[in-house]
Amino acid sequence: MVIHGGAGTILKSSMDPATEQAYKDTMTESVRCGHALLKKGASSVDAVIAAIMVMEDSPLFNAGKGAVFSHEGRNELDASIMEGRQLNAGAIAAVTRVKNPIQLAARVMTASPHVMLVGEGAEVFAVEQGIPLVDSSYFYTERRWNQLQKLRESAGSSLSEDKDDDFEVRDHKFGTVGAVALDSSGDIATGTSTGGMTNKQYGRVGDSPIVGAGTYADNRSCGISATGHGEYFMRAVVAHDICARVAYKGISLQQAADEVIRDELVQMNGEGGVIGLDPAGNLVMSFNTVGMYRAAIDVNGALSVTIFK
Amino acid sequence: MVIHGGAGTILKSSMDPATEQAYKDTMTESVRCGHALLKKGASSVDAVIAAIMVMEDSPLFNAGKGAVFSHEGRNELDASIMEGRQLNAGAIAAVTRVKNPIQLAARVMTASPHVMLVGEGAEVFAVEQGIPLVDSSYFYTERRWNQLQKLRESAGSSLSEDKDDDFEVRDHKFGTVGAVALDSSGDIATGTSTGGMTNKQYGRVGDSPIVGAGTYADNRSCGISATGHGEYFMRAVVAHDICARVAYKGISLQQAADEVIRDELVQMNGEGGVIGLDPAGNLVMSFNTVGMYRAAIDVNGALSVTIFK
Repeated sequence: MVIHGGAGTILKSSMDPATEQAYKDTMTESVRCGHALLKKGASSVDAVIAAIMVMEDSPLFNAGKGAVFSHEGRNELDASIMEGRQLNAGAIAAVTRVKNPIQLAARVMTASPHVMLVGEGAEVFAVEQGIPLVDSSYFYTERRWNQLQKLRESAGSSLSEDKDDDFEVRDHKFGTVGAVALDSSGDIATGTSTGGMTNKQYGRVGDSPIVGAGTYADNRSCGISATGHGEYFMRAVVAHDICARVAYKGISLQQAADEVIRDELVQMNGEGGVIGLDPAGNLVMSFNTVGMYRAAIDVNGALSVTIFK
Repeated sequence: MVIHGGAGTILKSSMDPATEQAYKDTMTESVRCGHALLKKGASSVDAVIAAIMVMEDSPLFNAGKGAVFSHEGRNELDASIMEGRQLNAGAIAAVTRVKNPIQLAARVMTASPHVMLVGEGAEVFAVEQGIPLVDSSYFYTERRWNQLQKLRESAGSSLSEDKDDDFEVRDHKFGTVGAVALDSSGDIATGTSTGGMTNKQYGRVGDSPIVGAGTYADNRSCGISATGHGEYFMRAVVAHDICARVAYKGISLQQAADEVIRDELVQMNGEGGVIGLDPAGNLVMSFNTVGMYRAAIDVNGALSVTIFK
């Protein structure tokens, strides 16, 4: 079981110990929660949903409760999930009132003939399915609101984040959470959830809800969840490309992930990273940024929780 | 230059000669329009836009003017475009007032830092960019409206189309238009545009606006535009998978397309097809349905226009 909580310019020097500990505690809870289910024989899909919900319910990560604000001051949430046996998948984009977007993505996968639902239509489906909705004020956090004001004042464009010296603003350019799990049946599942990009405009959708870009799972190769500057991940179809390199080039998961994250994306100037698992339980955490929030429990039960390089 | 106008249960026995000729005439106009630009030295991106706009402006195809109706009686349009040199891409989904969705997708590619915009936000961007909007009544055609009524009466679900004996209803389950072009600089571009699935609900988005699923272009391998039962094409990331097989397995475009369309998708019960071009000008039209509207002008200038197998 492996999870991530976003990649970016995360420097130890700009993070106080209490904040660092809070991130680590939530990641530990997330990965333990998913792992506990797996140990009880639950499916990798259920483990992924449970692990991601822990991070969605935390104000720390850019997903669910802690989602960033769009240019218009709204929280627009995206998520996707996929399982590697039948290649079933579900995704939602631009929803504003769904408490746990990963839960709705999973319901799209299991209870609808569709793969992707967007906007108000996705929320109509959520209501019909009894998925918990919240008032949009639930997603208000002072920290995220201040980040939006800062960006609006500084330049008005999300790209100006590069110049911002606020760790949290820079950091959450690539805020996303994700999980990959391998269960006792040998099935891989992957999920990704995000609030997108601070100050995003025009109904922008990134890679997180795109099957192939932010999320992919195929028992024949591997499962991947991505986090990064979404536009580059969409153009490079990162998650599927790593699976394809494993399947068609016969290389290891580590090598395939490094080729895509450290070669292809670096050539495109696309920043970010991925986590992944293959059917043998080999684990990958590859990123081209200074840091990536990440945690894993390996096949022997050993826990690791890391933020920096 | 190669184009398609959708794949499906298109039987010669259920199509009258005048209808067949009308489809062929519009496809001829479309592919000639793109090819004429290429001969004048225009980019493959411009050729793709021009070819697709001809089909979007025709009431015959499920894209632009001829788009099918959603369950709520709306026309929700999706499109994407990609160029193979820099891997730039643009996509829009669930817009209701954009006359030529491929034009807006191209503008997202060239004039925004984003890859995908959805819903009203995408239309705000369209207005700012001076992209022509129309009243939603522009997309009303009696034929499509009657198809929606028929589906609503028969079972209310888009899946019931399988049982429908109306050629046009069955046919346009997979209605999409697309184009792939190779220009004199050796650059490949690909575009896809659609009205989606008749009677679709909940803000359903299919493969057409998904970079990797419905559309992909990479000068190092090939350009692909897909048409079919979108959910399967998204799960199999069809367009990118064909490019990946060419790049990593070193097989021909024809073989790669056939592996995905005739093996992978058939195993999943996913119906549809693709068109594609590689950098050498090799052309592919692969489908697992009874027919696919398609036309091409090869490197020698020879025109072919075909509907059935």
